[in-house]
Amino acid sequence: MPRPTCWVTCWREAGCSINTPVIPKTTLQRIVTLALEEDLGRGDVTTEACVDVATRGEAMLRARQPLVVCGTEIAREVFRQVDEDLVLSVCVADGSKADAGATVLEISGSARSILNGERVALNFMQRLSAVATRTRTCVDAIPPGCATRIADTRKTTPGLRAFERYAVRCGGGHNHREDLAAAVLIKDNHIAAAGSVREAIERAKAYAPHSSRITCEVDSLEQLDDALTAGADAVLLDNFDDASVARAIAMVGERAIVEVSGGVEAKRIPDLARLGVDVISIGALTHSAGAVDLGLDWR
Amino acid sequence: MPRPTCWVTCWREAGCSINTPVIPKTTLQRIVTLALEEDLGRGDVTTEACVDVATRGEAMLRARQPLVVCGTEIAREVFRQVDEDLVLSVCVADGSKADAGATVLEISGSARSILNGERVALNFMQRLSAVATRTRTCVDAIPPGCATRIADTRKTTPGLRAFERYAVRCGGGHNHREDLAAAVLIKDNHIAAAGSVREAIERAKAYAPHSSRITCEVDSLEQLDDALTAGADAVLLDNFDDASVARAIAMVGERAIVEVSGGVEAKRIPDLARLGVDVISIGALTHSAGAVDLGLDWR
Amino acid sequence: MPRPTCWVTCWREAGCSINTPVIPKTTLQRIVTLALEEDLGRGDVTTEACVDVATRGEAMLRARQPLVVCGTEIAREVFRQVDEDLVLSVCVADGSKADAGATVLEISGSARSILNGERVALNFMQRLSAVATRTRTCVDAIPPGCATRIADTRKTTPGLRAFERYAVRCGGGHNHREDLAAAVLIKDNHIAAAGSVREAIERAKAYAPHSSRITCEVDSLEQLDDALTAGADAVLLDNFDDASVARAIAMVGERAIVEVSGGVEAKRIPDLARLGVDVISIGALTHSAGAVDLGLDWR
Amino acid sequence: MPRPTCWVTCWREAGCSINTPVIPKTTLQRIVTLALEEDLGRGDVTTEACVDVATRGEAMLRARQPLVVCGTEIAREVFRQVDEDLVLSVCVADGSKADAGATVLEISGSARSILNGERVALNFMQRLSAVATRTRTCVDAIPPGCATRIADTRKTTPGLRAFERYAVRCGGGHNHREDLAAAVLIKDNHIAAAGSVREAIERAKAYAPHSSRITCEVDSLEQLDDALTAGADAVLLDNFDDASVARAIAMVGERAIVEVSGGVEAKRIPDLARLGVDVISIGALTHSAGAVDLGLDWR
Amino acid sequence: MPRPTCWVTCWREAGCSINTPVIPKTTLQRIVTLALEEDLGRGDVTTEACVDVATRGEAMLRARQPLVVCGTEIAREVFRQVDEDLVLSVCVADGSKADAGATVLEISGSARSILNGERVALNFMQRLSAVATRTRTCVDAIPPGCATRIADTRKTTPGLRAFERYAVRCGGGHNHREDLAAAVLIKDNHIAAAGSVREAIERAKAYAPHSSRITCEVDSLEQLDDALTAGADAVLLDNFDDASVARAIAMVGERAIVEVSGGVEAKRIPDLARLGVDVISIGALTHSAGAVDLGLDWR
Amino acid sequence: MPRPTCWVTCWREAGCSINTPVIPKTTLQRIVTLALEEDLGRGDVTTEACVDVATRGEAMLRARQPLVVCGTEIAREVFRQVDEDLVLSVCVADGSKADAGATVLEISGSARSILNGERVALNFMQRLSAVATRTRTCVDAIPPGCATRIADTRKTTPGLRAFERYAVRCGGGHNHREDLAAAVLIKDNHIAAAGSVREAIERAKAYAPHSSRITCEVDSLEQLDDALTAGADAVLLDNFDDASVARAIAMVGERAIVEVSGGVEAKRIPDLARLGVDVISIGALTHSAGAVDLGLDWR
Repeated sequence: MPRPTCWVTCWREAGCSINTPVIPKTTLQRIVTLALEEDLGRGDVTTEACVDVATRGEAMLRARQPLVVCGTEIAREVFRQVDEDLVLSVCVADGSKADAGATVLEISGSARSILNGERVALNFMQRLSAVATRTRTCVDAIPPGCATRIADTRKTTPGLRAFERYAVRCGGGHNHREDLAAAVLIKDNHIAAAGSVREAIERAKAYAPHSSRITCEVDSLEQLDDALTAGADAVLLDNFDDASVARAIAMVGERAIVEVSGGVEAKRIPDLARLGVDVISIGALTHSAGAVDLGLDWR
Repeated sequence: MPRPTCWVTCWREAGCSINTPVIPKTTLQRIVTLALEEDLGRGDVTTEACVDVATRGEAMLRARQPLVVCGTEIAREVFRQVDEDLVLSVCVADGSKADAGATVLEISGSARSILNGERVALNFMQRLSAVATRTRTCVDAIPPGCATRIADTRKTTPGLRAFERYAVRCGGGHNHREDLAAAVLIKDNHIAAAGSVREAIERAKAYAPHSSRITCEVDSLEQLDDALTAGADAVLLDNFDDASVARAIAMVGERAIVEVSGGVEAKRIPDLARLGVDVISIGALTHSAGAVDLGLDWR
Repeated sequence: MPRPTCWVTCWREAGCSINTPVIPKTTLQRIVTLALEEDLGRGDVTTEACVDVATRGEAMLRARQPLVVCGTEIAREVFRQVDEDLVLSVCVADGSKADAGATVLEISGSARSILNGERVALNFMQRLSAVATRTRTCVDAIPPGCATRIADTRKTTPGLRAFERYAVRCGGGHNHREDLAAAVLIKDNHIAAAGSVREAIERAKAYAPHSSRITCEVDSLEQLDDALTAGADAVLLDNFDDASVARAIAMVGERAIVEVSGGVEAKRIPDLARLGVDVISIGALTHSAGAVDLGLDWR
Repeated sequence: MPRPTCWVTCWREAGCSINTPVIPKTTLQRIVTLALEEDLGRGDVTTEACVDVATRGEAMLRARQPLVVCGTEIAREVFRQVDEDLVLSVCVADGSKADAGATVLEISGSARSILNGERVALNFMQRLSAVATRTRTCVDAIPPGCATRIADTRKTTPGLRAFERYAVRCGGGHNHREDLAAAVLIKDNHIAAAGSVREAIERAKAYAPHSSRITCEVDSLEQLDDALTAGADAVLLDNFDDASVARAIAMVGERAIVEVSGGVEAKRIPDLARLGVDVISIGALTHSAGAVDLGLDWR
Repeated sequence: MPRPTCWVTCWREAGCSINTPVIPKTTLQRIVTLALEEDLGRGDVTTEACVDVATRGEAMLRARQPLVVCGTEIAREVFRQVDEDLVLSVCVADGSKADAGATVLEISGSARSILNGERVALNFMQRLSAVATRTRTCVDAIPPGCATRIADTRKTTPGLRAFERYAVRCGGGHNHREDLAAAVLIKDNHIAAAGSVREAIERAKAYAPHSSRITCEVDSLEQLDDALTAGADAVLLDNFDDASVARAIAMVGERAIVEVSGGVEAKRIPDLARLGVDVISIGALTHSAGAVDLGLDWR
Repeated sequence: MPRPTCWVTCWREAGCSINTPVIPKTTLQRIVTLALEEDLGRGDVTTEACVDVATRGEAMLRARQPLVVCGTEIAREVFRQVDEDLVLSVCVADGSKADAGATVLEISGSARSILNGERVALNFMQRLSAVATRTRTCVDAIPPGCATRIADTRKTTPGLRAFERYAVRCGGGHNHREDLAAAVLIKDNHIAAAGSVREAIERAKAYAPHSSRITCEVDSLEQLDDALTAGADAVLLDNFDDASVARAIAMVGERAIVEVSGGVEAKRIPDLARLGVDVISIGALTHSAGAVDLGLDWR
């Protein structure tokens, strides 16, 4: 596909890179229910013993480090499933930055209920805010005027892919294909099985939904040439150094979208962006984000 | 995206339009379990009363009309979940044609178990073979040398989308996007909400995974022009007559994939294919296929 | 069982053939959740990209052909699960006829939410209204004064039996047994396994809950005689022509309920009804109803 | 319905009162999985600590009191889900009597696995064997020559109805209707809502599947007369004393099946049976059976 | 652990033996949904036929014998899942005693909805109130001044453990370990596998979470001595007579918690308590509680 | 509880700190199924297009960095659910160290099936091996002769707690309480609600299962004194510096288990261990372990 400059530019200059992403309600409810069953499903013996059922409480979820917030609606769902009468107000919306000390959300109501849901809400928010924060760091590393996307991969936490992809969007990043069915991505073993890059790409074009672009992963300029000749819509340069990326981009011209992947660290992003890479996909956004420090302070 | 002739051709001429589609095992098991719980979950009082537990039986699933077979592996899973000791052999594979009277599969073992699973297996196979048969009729209506695809839509039976999409592939058709997340398809209300075709397309390009093509549904040649100018990768001509389709294809040239939809019947397919339409999507493949006549004959 | 005229008559003359059928809430919610997970569970990329979260919309579900409405409460549940703040009002209740062009229900609220649920709601309503419409056509074919029931079978869509049985009731039809546990229906293989019609019926009488009638399928007048002698409460005449049905009814007298089944088409219903058949069961009500044309028009 | 003597007799004299009842496999697996998740889902810390993974064991499930066995196939499924390599052999089949001390089943294999599943298997078998044993006591109380059935009710343990109904069949009893959908049982509040016994029965006849008998609960001879006049197929005499039962049976003649319910204890069964009652339904079979003493002895 | 008198005393004298136990909401909803699907999931044919959708009703759940109430919040959830518009008010809270004739809760709203949920609500409440009542009888048997606990075991109904443990707390009893993962309880087979009491206890101490006490079941005073020497935190005297219990308690001194188990009946509790037993665990609290008589009276 | 030296020592010196931990099979299957549904549930369009159904493959999972292996049985279950005919052999068992380049497991069979399950298997193993590796680093930091445990917390990934706790055990660490029901851990808000440390501890002792130790978190030496006086079995020193830990341990003597928590890093572990801390619990073991580098190499 021709790679029109105006298009690639728009996804940053039009200011629409975060267009209020959401998590579908049934998915939100299902995952939260599983998490609550895991931690609270058999009761909370300490709270039941120590805290009177009539005791009220108020607490604030506070950032203890600078971060990009993600998961407030998940926390809301956690507390809603624990006790519909809790009142929760969000002070910093998902996708916004919070300074150390900032109050992200406030919650009040039954002290028992707040204690019951606290850990599960924190476990979600610490992890997802870490993903959003790490993504934002990468996105902010793209020099002005460059139109490169930071994208996630399928290296997500089993069971939490929907949430982590949402966190990437909250951090200003973009999602890659959702799962093995959502788009074609031809890797070395597919090529080996099909016999050649050309054969693999032709089979994929003939078989896949026409709504899916055909991406082919290549590990050399020779393979890249084959992929372009066979009509790949996008090419994934796997573990290319900067010099090879530059040569690859020159070869591609307007013929395909160029994605770079393979252990890309934040410091390398500016150079890749200036070379004209369209997409940098980074597994570490989700598999190594760890957890940010967020805590619940009681008033 | 340029629409290279060689590519569009290959999906039929390369002979790979059915490349052994499969249904993932966990999905297969989950849907079959739900179906068995619905019909057999509380027991089979007649069989329990009348048929001795030691009685053996042999039965053949026979086509009572010409059809394209679909669902033999689903039937196998049905009977496996009922009784692992049943022996089932498939005589006509999914995607193949069967004449009236042909034996599609044979099953032997506990008579109780065969009776327990018979209705559920038939309910799946009659429905899915009807989808495959109807799809095949449409695919066979494409004149030699034309490279048009017959595709399904999201108008599938709630809960059975995975199976029905598989049936379409068994009939030689292609799948459209899997669900609302798998690709972008801009419709009139998206355009209205975004303000214009251009704005909708630009937002989608900026937001969607780069692995997804951007399709825009249009209902006039003016809208088509807007969509092409804004860089749509594919256009869906909604309820266009043949003359308008011809003009649209001339306008599009190599700039986009052309899909036609809106109550297309089998007899219109040859004309649309000759006009050079890339994709004809037909909701009736799944929502109105009905059931073919398949029955279980005991030996 | 003696077949008292007053009783058979009442189910049409008492005007209670549709006595406000309902779908239990937990079943309704479960099936709708599965359908939403299938289509929307991973998000709606187009709507998220193009439609601002604050945009409001109003839409009307309209009949595009004459039909019997079925599924408005299912649509309500679909939209409720997507977004509790949507406002939905039903204009034509389930079981009522709608002319082409009639507004069946109206919905307003977040445009995103309406778009998110539209396809799932339509997939249910198009299919179930088709079942109700087809059933109503059959029910209306019964001549005045005849007391024949139109009944469904177990040839339903796997996973949707509860909904399709409801649709049959909405169309003025009656349900047959719910599943293999709900009542006894002795077929040829049960007879073969038991050794004789008499043995099968006696075993069933001895084993089944006393709340279940014993129905025996017969394919000849000889078998019918055996079944009556053995005390069947109901007989199912399988693929009998009209002359044989007449002879069978004469043989039965007041001794059993008479059901006819086997590819009965609408045009044959008046004759069967006039012969005095009690129940005509028709698999095509559910397996071949297809979909009626219902669409969502935005204001 | 006329109550032919030959029929009522057969269900005991034909020797088919236990015709090898079974539990459908998907139901069996689902309930057992829930039970294992509850007890073992998070591990067995004691066994993991103390028992080497290579240690083998052999154990025998022994009756510590005379009982009717029920649940051996459930125990098999428990141990199969814990560890497919365990070897289990059933010594006393479900429905058979075991003396105190008798070995009901033997199991050998990994000692860890046997310990993991022991409690869940025992919890099922102790409870279900108690139901079967209590049922058998009631069934054995029926004098020779009487054709009365002992039946369960819907007063079962939530979640275990399928298993408890199976246990009743193993004890020689019969099942009543499976659930609220399986058959019609008109109670006082239905009569009050419909306005009269006649109206309730007519509505039910007009609405219910023809495969279901219409049972009407009555609490006086006046109501009984109404129910018979309106054509009830069965009548449930609620809390009638023996004299009233006798009068009721005389009134009913051959017109309906006669069921007695309401705290019937075992010692009253012979008299009721001699009076000619067809069905005695006893909630205590399931709600108050308690647990028999069965234990696992290691070799 | 030293067994400080003040501590053991507190759990009765501090008046906190029922500190408002609760069932987590997600667990409550899940179990109730399963129960409703089982009884009502396919509809209520009698009520649908006989009761007009507009009919209103009011009913009172009444104790028909003296009992300790348990399950009102479960009943509330049952009726909420059936119909959110029902109004339910609790007259006697869980854990309180109700005399014969007392109204435990009142419910009003759609008559259909009350009838739909009645049986499921009763099945839960009759069973759980029986557990609470039986537990209360045992707790009340402890003489004033004694600090003995009555505890449940893992001999609970599969699927209902959370509810039955709650019922035990409502009856003034205490819970034992939740499941095989929640704490260490070394039994004879663990000892056999480990080689000796000492080895089993040391392995368990080395492996288990430090939050878990190590309990060792012993069947003789020799084993008790071994267990104490090896540092067991608690000992379970299995089937000891009173004289042996007395000797055991003298041996233990302050070194461990003393639990007695093995068919303890209510009449033996005072003696055991006076001997200074800390915990009496009784499987019959849950496996043999049966059902109390609670019924729904319509106004 | 007195803290006997022999006991604390044994959990390292007896060499039983990894006593072959396992994951219960039903839990293993459930979590793996969810993960497969998420990635593969709708098919693998690339593999279906490019790889012939008959193509065989062999691949080796290799460590690309030194690590402690965890998850081989999970990978086995992943591939088993994808295709029962795959052959998998484990070369390095869970809990063992693998050098960079070492082959951890080998798999052979259908190339399609290996590609289908590859990503899910890797997502599990990379994450869990990281947890095991990080835990092992901490465990190895304990000086010889010290008896300190490294323990996890409830800061686990929602949905994966069972797997992550297993990984901690594989790394030589210990588990803390499983969930809010498994043991008592009194925190500041419980103390505030109860009114005092003493009151909180007494309520907990009176209410909790006797199998659970009572742990009290303290943030000052004053609170520690209160907790000891009230009879806490274990104390959690929250964010104490080394000097305060030393003073705390002197105060505690033999009266309680001493746990230290609050951002403890590996380099601080030797000092804490030498001070005599019993348990160091570290949330980062699970929330910040990230992913180790493990990849699948095809032969």
